[in-house]
Amino acid sequence: MPLLNSVGVHEPFALRSIMEIVTDDSYGLGESYGDSAHLKRLKDAAHDMEGVSVYNTNLIYKICENSLEGDNATGGDGMAGMVTTASVTDKVFSPFEVACLDIQGKIAGLPVCEILGGRVRDNVQYSAYLFYKWGSHPGQPEDIYGEALDSTGIVRQAQKIITKYGFKAIKLKGGVFPPAEEVKAVKALHTAFPEMPLRLDPNAAWTVETSKWVASQLEGIVEYLEDPAPEIEGMAAVAKQASMPLATNMAVVAFSHLPPSVAQDAVQVILSDHHFWGGLRKSQTLAAICSTWKMGLSMHSNSHLGISLAAMTHLAAATPNLDYACDTHWPWKRDEEDVIVEGALKWRDGGVAVPTAPGLGIEIDREKLERLHQQYLECGMTKRDDTTYMRNFRPEFSPHIPRW
Amino acid sequence: MPLLNSVGVHEPFALRSIMEIVTDDSYGLGESYGDSAHLKRLKDAAHDMEGVSVYNTNLIYKICENSLEGDNATGGDGMAGMVTTASVTDKVFSPFEVACLDIQGKIAGLPVCEILGGRVRDNVQYSAYLFYKWGSHPGQPEDIYGEALDSTGIVRQAQKIITKYGFKAIKLKGGVFPPAEEVKAVKALHTAFPEMPLRLDPNAAWTVETSKWVASQLEGIVEYLEDPAPEIEGMAAVAKQASMPLATNMAVVAFSHLPPSVAQDAVQVILSDHHFWGGLRKSQTLAAICSTWKMGLSMHSNSHLGISLAAMTHLAAATPNLDYACDTHWPWKRDEEDVIVEGALKWRDGGVAVPTAPGLGIEIDREKLERLHQQYLECGMTKRDDTTYMRNFRPEFSPHIPRW
Repeated sequence: MPLLNSVGVHEPFALRSIMEIVTDDSYGLGESYGDSAHLKRLKDAAHDMEGVSVYNTNLIYKICENSLEGDNATGGDGMAGMVTTASVTDKVFSPFEVACLDIQGKIAGLPVCEILGGRVRDNVQYSAYLFYKWGSHPGQPEDIYGEALDSTGIVRQAQKIITKYGFKAIKLKGGVFPPAEEVKAVKALHTAFPEMPLRLDPNAAWTVETSKWVASQLEGIVEYLEDPAPEIEGMAAVAKQASMPLATNMAVVAFSHLPPSVAQDAVQVILSDHHFWGGLRKSQTLAAICSTWKMGLSMHSNSHLGISLAAMTHLAAATPNLDYACDTHWPWKRDEEDVIVEGALKWRDGGVAVPTAPGLGIEIDREKLERLHQQYLECGMTKRDDTTYMRNFRPEFSPHIPRW
Repeated sequence: MPLLNSVGVHEPFALRSIMEIVTDDSYGLGESYGDSAHLKRLKDAAHDMEGVSVYNTNLIYKICENSLEGDNATGGDGMAGMVTTASVTDKVFSPFEVACLDIQGKIAGLPVCEILGGRVRDNVQYSAYLFYKWGSHPGQPEDIYGEALDSTGIVRQAQKIITKYGFKAIKLKGGVFPPAEEVKAVKALHTAFPEMPLRLDPNAAWTVETSKWVASQLEGIVEYLEDPAPEIEGMAAVAKQASMPLATNMAVVAFSHLPPSVAQDAVQVILSDHHFWGGLRKSQTLAAICSTWKMGLSMHSNSHLGISLAAMTHLAAATPNLDYACDTHWPWKRDEEDVIVEGALKWRDGGVAVPTAPGLGIEIDREKLERLHQQYLECGMTKRDDTTYMRNFRPEFSPHIPRW
């Protein structure tokens, strides 16, 4: 759906790769970005994986690392250029690791969350992820959520989405309209849902000064402010004055970013994402680092299918301090478009019931997979580019940040 | 054997606890401290473990935590008061976790190192751990290593121990004689073994000023200087001037110590020890933290039996950046005194060949266990106290540090 953000608007298709590792008597699933640079890397790495034990993730990581030698390609994610400094090896390794854990779980007869140390919750809470949006892709009939271009539209969207899923926390993707307008929308959400923890995420569209002003406006209203200003230095400058924690999935997106961020107390909440933090176990390492340095831990999302939702759910189920409601783009996906057999992931009370079947607890639906693969071939897209798509309709649009 | 250190001298017996977790069709082994305070804690925690899955380490940790509520006992380790600020929960949890991993490995038919991510080395190197020592416990015949009370004695001890085990790194336990004497011994070792990485560990027996002097004397001679001065602040002050990395297993012994230590760059190498860092997976988390903050990683030892040697070996085998030769007290244990079936752990070229049998790759020898248990009952010791034992012979001895 045509969701707006600081770099443009979501295209009609979101690219995803599906990873299947086949063993003698089982198979494991992973899911990751689907742009051509990443697909090539996954294929290159897969080339040397034959015969490797699904337990030997040290070797699998090494193979990924080696396969990337001399690779200077740009891209390799599905985040429209918003997360460019994550570790490429961690991104390539991630779906292999998830698929290996799926198989490890199947071998042990246990859900992945048990392999990861045991579930500490039976239902993983997600947030209502609100977007400013057009009523439809240009030339198409209005979609089920309709237009949301002001605070009234955002509150209406929240009501629809919360009625359907039961979410108990709300995140608004900002960076689209001038900050005063987005502050107004968050305040309207606070009035409409006074009990709900709220978050605002402008994807670093603001200067440090603007960020401080927004922070002062939203004191006592948001549980955290997400990526107001660009880079660790920008976040650190805002953090000095903001009364609420600052969260990030842009300034700190790799282990190498942690030392400078911690040294400056730049962020107080990290949004983990197993797709770029190197899989589920490395995300648990990130969780331990957050616990050690007394930072909060939440979870980032970009457009994904059921395999990733299962992986995200198992990770959060087994990670005690991953206790903020996680982000998900799930409501923005057509219900009928997925690659897994329906029914394994059950939404209830704003969360997903942690699967109890072995492994990720899901199975591939090969007919559905084939249908989405045809869609991929026909759509002709090979990378995500929200900016170019936006410029088709608003030629003057600039993705330059900070904008305000 | 009567090994000397900054707080006294090793007693004739070293107390260890053996943990056995029994499942319907298998069992798992762990090993930990054996003083009465720790034994009581292990028993209290074990009380609520029945029926818990060996994969559910989150719950096992929680049970340990709960069982410690209201526990104000002192002691609870085997380190003669030298490591007092480690996390008590992590110490109690550790042998449970090791035993669970032993069973997880047996279930999967894989060695523990494969469960931990896959071996990156087939032989885990250990260091020759030298001690100043008396020729025997008072009133006993001379032991096989004899006296070492000066640099000549230390070089002789090194030759014996290296001939037997093939070690390729040397650690000298200092803090026993005036620093100039210990510097002399390290220099004598450097002359006798010019190719070997050397370490000196006075257990915080020196002031900051003395530590700086020793560091200047040993420039280019030791690979790291271990715990020269007490506390994070003392280490940080020494680190500012020392040319070699400083290592610790006294100033940073729990996750809560990492933030202040990192902020001051107090230590450059951490000696992990799964007995007080909360088991093998949490030791791997520590390893990831060391890698992230570009600290080195080595391994601490105190007196232990074969179960711990197996656990240490699997951990080091599966942890890429645990690449310093690990410490072990193994040579100071009588060969015939152990609790495991002989032959599983093979010393070769200064290291232990990583076991390839499922789990830890060792089995309990119940006859040997019974023999050591009788020894425990008869010796009457219930905690380690190197100072009191020393004062039996040297009533004027004071364990006060820093001494020089």
